[in-house]
Amino acid sequence: MSKLLPPHGGKGLTVTLLEGSERDAELKKAQGLRKVEISRGERGDLIMIGTGGFSPLGGFMTREDWKGVCENMLLADGTFWPVPVNLSVSKEDFDAINDGDEVALYFAEKDEFMATMKITQKWEKSEDDKKWECETVYKGQGEESADDVFWKIAMEDHPGVQRVMADKNYFLAGPVKVLSEGDFPTKFKGTYMRPADARAEFDKRGWGTVAALQLRNPMHRSHEHLVKIAIEVCDGAFIHSLIGALKPGDIPAEVRIECINTLIDGYFVKDFAVQGGYPLDMRYAGPREALLHATFRQNYGVSHMIIGRDHAGVGDFYTLFEAQEIFDRIPYAQEGCPDPGKALLCKPLKIDWTFYCKKCDGMASMRTCPHGKDDRVILSGTKLRKALSDGEPVVDHFGREEVLEILREYYAGLTEKVEVKMQKAASGADMK
Amino acid sequence: MSKLLPPHGGKGLTVTLLEGSERDAELKKAQGLRKVEISRGERGDLIMIGTGGFSPLGGFMTREDWKGVCENMLLADGTFWPVPVNLSVSKEDFDAINDGDEVALYFAEKDEFMATMKITQKWEKSEDDKKWECETVYKGQGEESADDVFWKIAMEDHPGVQRVMADKNYFLAGPVKVLSEGDFPTKFKGTYMRPADARAEFDKRGWGTVAALQLRNPMHRSHEHLVKIAIEVCDGAFIHSLIGALKPGDIPAEVRIECINTLIDGYFVKDFAVQGGYPLDMRYAGPREALLHATFRQNYGVSHMIIGRDHAGVGDFYTLFEAQEIFDRIPYAQEGCPDPGKALLCKPLKIDWTFYCKKCDGMASMRTCPHGKDDRVILSGTKLRKALSDGEPVVDHFGREEVLEILREYYAGLTEKVEVKMQKAASGADMK
Repeated sequence: MSKLLPPHGGKGLTVTLLEGSERDAELKKAQGLRKVEISRGERGDLIMIGTGGFSPLGGFMTREDWKGVCENMLLADGTFWPVPVNLSVSKEDFDAINDGDEVALYFAEKDEFMATMKITQKWEKSEDDKKWECETVYKGQGEESADDVFWKIAMEDHPGVQRVMADKNYFLAGPVKVLSEGDFPTKFKGTYMRPADARAEFDKRGWGTVAALQLRNPMHRSHEHLVKIAIEVCDGAFIHSLIGALKPGDIPAEVRIECINTLIDGYFVKDFAVQGGYPLDMRYAGPREALLHATFRQNYGVSHMIIGRDHAGVGDFYTLFEAQEIFDRIPYAQEGCPDPGKALLCKPLKIDWTFYCKKCDGMASMRTCPHGKDDRVILSGTKLRKALSDGEPVVDHFGREEVLEILREYYAGLTEKVEVKMQKAASGADMK
Repeated sequence: MSKLLPPHGGKGLTVTLLEGSERDAELKKAQGLRKVEISRGERGDLIMIGTGGFSPLGGFMTREDWKGVCENMLLADGTFWPVPVNLSVSKEDFDAINDGDEVALYFAEKDEFMATMKITQKWEKSEDDKKWECETVYKGQGEESADDVFWKIAMEDHPGVQRVMADKNYFLAGPVKVLSEGDFPTKFKGTYMRPADARAEFDKRGWGTVAALQLRNPMHRSHEHLVKIAIEVCDGAFIHSLIGALKPGDIPAEVRIECINTLIDGYFVKDFAVQGGYPLDMRYAGPREALLHATFRQNYGVSHMIIGRDHAGVGDFYTLFEAQEIFDRIPYAQEGCPDPGKALLCKPLKIDWTFYCKKCDGMASMRTCPHGKDDRVILSGTKLRKALSDGEPVVDHFGREEVLEILREYYAGLTEKVEVKMQKAASGADMK
């Protein structure tokens, strides 16, 4: 008997990914259906729906789901869900499709049929609807979310808002049959995991409580410290990286995974740490995304979602601990929930800002270290990137040397590419 | 509204300590009652009963309570309780007292009336009963608890067994009215706290979850690390020292309290750590005492009892983590308890063996550190005492220098006392 939390929504893992001959037949059928193009972000959502990562969702949302989620974080049937998962299509597709039709969802970049979908509802968002969605889901309490600032900069600086506003205004809802997980299983072999894989791994280890660390940046000692606190109080930890798309300039997943492997090899007791990857793109929705992280992590068997400083944030749209606080205000909170099957069961493991402190002689947080700024090793991302790019030493105790070495190599490669480009440009100029 | 756990047993804090004119009148009455002498250990239990620290106990146990506690960790009314709290008297007192009598409980060492008691039951333990009590309550799974070893050494080496076996075989049960907290409030001013004081302090800070550290030894970095882990996952920590009697050779409470004050001053954020003391003597009952620690800590408002390595153990009577494991096997466990009012609500916060590790570059535990023995700073009590007594440096990273300095001074004082004694003895010999 598994000791793990059940999947979210009370329906088990709602897997719609087909395999074997069933998949072959559906793929053949797809080739004869109307081809609807999906974006990279929608492809990530689709794979999560397919593997049961987004249980209990079995497809893209209706207008009622979308509205309830934006407004109250509840699906139309009352199940907790914090962020819209919807499919936008062109006006041309929208007009050509009728309720009840089946269509093929196609990802052009990889020339791949990703799913078939049975249309149960065609619905629209006005420009005002989209703005309202951005304001309810993406606007926080940070300086850049102030009423007189938000719309002046969000279209430039908030990738989640950009994604919502870039959508065409036409949407399709309905259940999907997923045909592919894209290149994730091959490109990230050994790291990419379906929820059922993660659950099997945790069950094998006899775990009941599992803490997850969300990662989209290289894992330094502050992250290591979060996970190690979690390992003291839970049966084990799941270091779970986003392997979908990020902002430009962020470190690619392959490099980040190598950093994590190196850290686990050198600094973790392997019995208590498992690495995995999931195929979503970042939405940078801060508090709402922290809730989404906890929601889909529950499907992977996670009981405690580590929420640190500025979780899933971008710029100054959110305050530092807004993503922790929102867990105290969600509908269907665990205690005294009228319908426990619809509540989020995965709990936040809230941890303060962590750093190395020389006087503490080890890692500490704002809750445990009484010392001053000068005793603490805190390094901005900008300074870290500069040191790594320039091949300079990084201040002591900030990261593990083995991990910094991987990042130095990555940045050196980048520099080489830039140099090669510049040389090519220069020699091209000479030849003219 | 307090966010703290309610006291154990569902009856609130059952305070029987009298104050003001009520106390004056009862004290006057006590002086006219039969004087029954109590031991130092019984005095500690009595003060805990008086302040509500032992809620819901309102007095010393009946034979039925005692038997249920030994056998099943349940009082006669079904309430969870892990260790007997009983009052043994001389044959002479026993014969002179009748059911329904009132007596005065008197602590001869301090010439003080501690309580009045209404006798509801006179009961006896045979020698076999006492042995059975020792075997059910004090015998563990360690090497020294093996069937062919236990009784060969327990009378010599186990202070808890000694206490049970030293009791006369005659017992009195009944409710008490407590007249005094002895010298604890004055001798340990600022540290000694009643459960209501601790609750008021936690309420003032707005805490809901409070982790307690049990201390009977000086607080080194391993203890500091336990508390700091707890501070990350609870609202705050209660560093709660035993200020009753210990084994010979252990460090007195005054010195330990100074060490803790120094640590809190230099290495804790004061918002998140409170120091307190409680008047019990150690029983060294290992797992059963760990449960007692959690039970009475709940009365102080504690939600999570930190249980580390060999909690409340002595010699090799218990295995290293027996005191953690017993929490999984207690009757009336929290989940699915038929009568939650009778269950222990305070949960264990189980933490593995902790130490400084050079490769980890900070504090770690067996669950987080994959490195070898040579990388870890682990110091036996014997070696530590030798270094401190000899005024030699203690290996790096083991303790905080400010704390070690206090202990060095204490040991230097001891040495001086011994030297003075030897000089006196020598000069005495000269004078003969």
